[in-house]
Amino acid sequence: MKVGFIGLGIMGSAMANNLLKDGIKLNIYNRSKQKINELATDNFEFFDNPKLVAQNSDIIFLMLSNDEACENVVNSKNGLLEGLENGKIVVNFSTVSASYSQNLYDKVKNKNALFLEAPVVGSKIPAQNAQLIILCAGDKKAYETVNPYFKKLSKRVFYLDNIPNASYLKIVNNQVMGITMQALAEGLQLAKKLNLDLNVVLDLLNSGAFANSMFELKGKNILSNNYEAHFPYEHMQKDLGFAVKLAEDKKAFCPALSIVNETYKKGLANYSKIDMCAIYEALNS
Amino acid sequence: MKVGFIGLGIMGSAMANNLLKDGIKLNIYNRSKQKINELATDNFEFFDNPKLVAQNSDIIFLMLSNDEACENVVNSKNGLLEGLENGKIVVNFSTVSASYSQNLYDKVKNKNALFLEAPVVGSKIPAQNAQLIILCAGDKKAYETVNPYFKKLSKRVFYLDNIPNASYLKIVNNQVMGITMQALAEGLQLAKKLNLDLNVVLDLLNSGAFANSMFELKGKNILSNNYEAHFPYEHMQKDLGFAVKLAEDKKAFCPALSIVNETYKKGLANYSKIDMCAIYEALNS
Amino acid sequence: MKVGFIGLGIMGSAMANNLLKDGIKLNIYNRSKQKINELATDNFEFFDNPKLVAQNSDIIFLMLSNDEACENVVNSKNGLLEGLENGKIVVNFSTVSASYSQNLYDKVKNKNALFLEAPVVGSKIPAQNAQLIILCAGDKKAYETVNPYFKKLSKRVFYLDNIPNASYLKIVNNQVMGITMQALAEGLQLAKKLNLDLNVVLDLLNSGAFANSMFELKGKNILSNNYEAHFPYEHMQKDLGFAVKLAEDKKAFCPALSIVNETYKKGLANYSKIDMCAIYEALNS
Amino acid sequence: MKVGFIGLGIMGSAMANNLLKDGIKLNIYNRSKQKINELATDNFEFFDNPKLVAQNSDIIFLMLSNDEACENVVNSKNGLLEGLENGKIVVNFSTVSASYSQNLYDKVKNKNALFLEAPVVGSKIPAQNAQLIILCAGDKKAYETVNPYFKKLSKRVFYLDNIPNASYLKIVNNQVMGITMQALAEGLQLAKKLNLDLNVVLDLLNSGAFANSMFELKGKNILSNNYEAHFPYEHMQKDLGFAVKLAEDKKAFCPALSIVNETYKKGLANYSKIDMCAIYEALNS
Repeated sequence: MKVGFIGLGIMGSAMANNLLKDGIKLNIYNRSKQKINELATDNFEFFDNPKLVAQNSDIIFLMLSNDEACENVVNSKNGLLEGLENGKIVVNFSTVSASYSQNLYDKVKNKNALFLEAPVVGSKIPAQNAQLIILCAGDKKAYETVNPYFKKLSKRVFYLDNIPNASYLKIVNNQVMGITMQALAEGLQLAKKLNLDLNVVLDLLNSGAFANSMFELKGKNILSNNYEAHFPYEHMQKDLGFAVKLAEDKKAFCPALSIVNETYKKGLANYSKIDMCAIYEALNS
Repeated sequence: MKVGFIGLGIMGSAMANNLLKDGIKLNIYNRSKQKINELATDNFEFFDNPKLVAQNSDIIFLMLSNDEACENVVNSKNGLLEGLENGKIVVNFSTVSASYSQNLYDKVKNKNALFLEAPVVGSKIPAQNAQLIILCAGDKKAYETVNPYFKKLSKRVFYLDNIPNASYLKIVNNQVMGITMQALAEGLQLAKKLNLDLNVVLDLLNSGAFANSMFELKGKNILSNNYEAHFPYEHMQKDLGFAVKLAEDKKAFCPALSIVNETYKKGLANYSKIDMCAIYEALNS
Repeated sequence: MKVGFIGLGIMGSAMANNLLKDGIKLNIYNRSKQKINELATDNFEFFDNPKLVAQNSDIIFLMLSNDEACENVVNSKNGLLEGLENGKIVVNFSTVSASYSQNLYDKVKNKNALFLEAPVVGSKIPAQNAQLIILCAGDKKAYETVNPYFKKLSKRVFYLDNIPNASYLKIVNNQVMGITMQALAEGLQLAKKLNLDLNVVLDLLNSGAFANSMFELKGKNILSNNYEAHFPYEHMQKDLGFAVKLAEDKKAFCPALSIVNETYKKGLANYSKIDMCAIYEALNS
Repeated sequence: MKVGFIGLGIMGSAMANNLLKDGIKLNIYNRSKQKINELATDNFEFFDNPKLVAQNSDIIFLMLSNDEACENVVNSKNGLLEGLENGKIVVNFSTVSASYSQNLYDKVKNKNALFLEAPVVGSKIPAQNAQLIILCAGDKKAYETVNPYFKKLSKRVFYLDNIPNASYLKIVNNQVMGITMQALAEGLQLAKKLNLDLNVVLDLLNSGAFANSMFELKGKNILSNNYEAHFPYEHMQKDLGFAVKLAEDKKAFCPALSIVNETYKKGLANYSKIDMCAIYEALNS
């Protein structure tokens, strides 16, 4: 199996490195070529466009930031679609809207190629440590072919039958995460205005029934003013926006989701590239 | 030390039992006398009013449902205040508004008695297992006197200096809990409308960075339609309401808190006495 | 000019009648033929499908309830598209999503026909009284051709250049209307819980700086429990949902819009077909 | 009748001037004496404290900014209470919380004096033009005594029996106003992001069923970036906060109120002293 990998952002480079370290040769494309300097081995070939990656690979992994970035890679001159043919498998790790994932599936299928959506749960550190959770939907055979590679990247894989179930589940997961994150941020903001010692507040929150490792990590980072991006603020907002649109389409009553998404939107101008826990700052400024 | 205990609700009876099991004799008052049938030993005396409990005890513990219930016990004919005198210690485990806790402190102090606010974190099961977390503020000496009893009820005690710091911290804790609970409920509601398998959704939520024991327990209960009250819905709403008022007084920007409180209010008519995880039902009905 | 008219709902039948009363012969299609009994004159021909209306008309007006209804009429077997040809003008009075309006424009243009989006402001009574406000965007020449008919239906016409500007403006208008409506409903609900005389409350609201005819009419209807549909609840929610999606796409911070839309969604199961002022009931139940 | 007037802010000075212009002599106190330069005639006496005003007057009008300002004037050394005696009438035009109004009533009654709450609807211009609406509750006899003065200040008076009904009604009025104001502001913000011509948007909003003079005035001011305070932003927020607390006490479901209050809170740091229509800016920054 010849393996392609497109997208060397925070997540993509960590995932590509885990494949490289396992001895898998990668055919790589990234918008900016410099990112190859961050790769763990030199067992890769860099191509000038997605079409060439597709032509030279049996499986092509994509890890891109949003619908637009995917569309640019897939459906432009020298894009992925031009290099597809019967039997190749496209695996999209990117979190995209459910409707776009369906759309991608249709485009790939038109080329007689196979498509899996495979959004991942987990940010920078789990990606580096091959501790992601992969949510996969699409052709079962293709899934079985790709699964050995998934195992090199993750601690767990969910197979969810039809597209866009994996997108749906990823969006629900991040809906819950975003609201939970804001719960912590609002609690800390109110605590600050009440002149409570925020370290004591965190200590308590980390001791009770809803203690969790995100509160522990993000709480510490907020208190030390450390907003290095593990999961960028703008991606958190993007995913909340996907959830808002799904809730609209399905007429689900999701008031907290709606208002957390609004709050995230409010801070986009100032915090988009730093970590999503900067919602703490967005509440305050 | 003679010990009084007033209030035998879900929490109070569990806590009183832990003291009784430890061999401590209790002077007890409860609005409805029948509740003594649930006590673990007969090493107690039941009194007909709070005044008598106060007169016969050095330390009086209160565990009541809200400001009004406390005021009725403390400040009515044959109420607690009438039985207080120099040196007695009143310990209020109830979660009340910060302003009422201050008010109680003033009233008790007027009788030359000592007052500790000591709201607890944890619901029915931790209360039964002496695994509560106690948040205590007020006179340091009184705290040191009472602390041995706290240890029989809890896994951890925070001492927070002045009143109403413990009330503040409890309210912040429950603010975060309430929003986090709604995060789960909204996620499950959207997932249901997306025809996802809710067991799979829970499995995922219990595997990621924000997995926590509340999600695990409440998620399972929601899916099995089990709303037996561990922490009653109306108490969750009451605490969210306290947080909303503090956020108003301190001008803290807490949009998710506000909207979660509204959502809880919406369901009061139908769900007040069952578990707070019935917010899942409130979103749907 | 031969004129077609498709859609005889609350709005469509009122508008068609104003054209009929002005002596204009109409080629009519409606899903349910019975609705022709409500027409003001018999100067019309009923056709069995939209294609036939298109073939027999130079201008075809559409007044349908949503994107799906439009798509059914336009783009199905014996649908409108099949009857279009060079020079015919399609005018869509329906309020649809901005993206669908763009999509309709593309489809009609593919047939070398012309397309105007022309959502209307005003509900049942203004429609009956030819007092609508028409918001029109699209080909200027087509607009000039159709404008004489617009004048028979409206007190005012805004021409807004390119599609989907008219859809945008209509959605913004209804965004403001929906929030304003909920402002009234929440005020009355709180007033009721405060035991104020709701007639006095309305009297005051109708006397101050923000007094408006919607408050006057809807307030009176709410107090008399009259929810006959002038502007159906489900259409109000649909338009709020359009606004939410636009706000998401443009990253506009619209917290009140989001939460009003959620509130409207909450009531869909019970109030969808009655008047949008039933939001007062939705807040309470 | 000797008349006192305490508080010469935006509203108070306009109201005092209408009494002065009518030939009524006023006994005046204001925190800053300079404000007397803005008075319309010199038919007044300035006193150094509220006690002296009370001692020298039969009726004392108060127009102050909030609960705290009232408490300072009424209940401090040389405060109003010290100068009250049997039969004097205190009329509070200030908008205060319902609970504080009740509290003021009790304090005044303890001095055997009479108390009316009389919050006004209308801002700077109606105050200047004696076009306010006065909402009055309290002792009926006192109301009849004071009513001739009310008529010199207002276009309309509502008498509402018992305290705090007038406070309640004023708070409901401003709840509806605040949400309606935000409806406009959010509509204009979304319209701007959609590149619509905001003058056209306003033109439309001023033509439809919910057209109102507040939209007309505030819309024009927003578009011309004119935020001179007619009704200060911080007072709008204060009143929304009062409504939020009432809704909490009465368990009224008011999601739009809650979220509009949050939005107003968010802007307090930047916009508190300018006009409440600066909520448009608060949404954007």
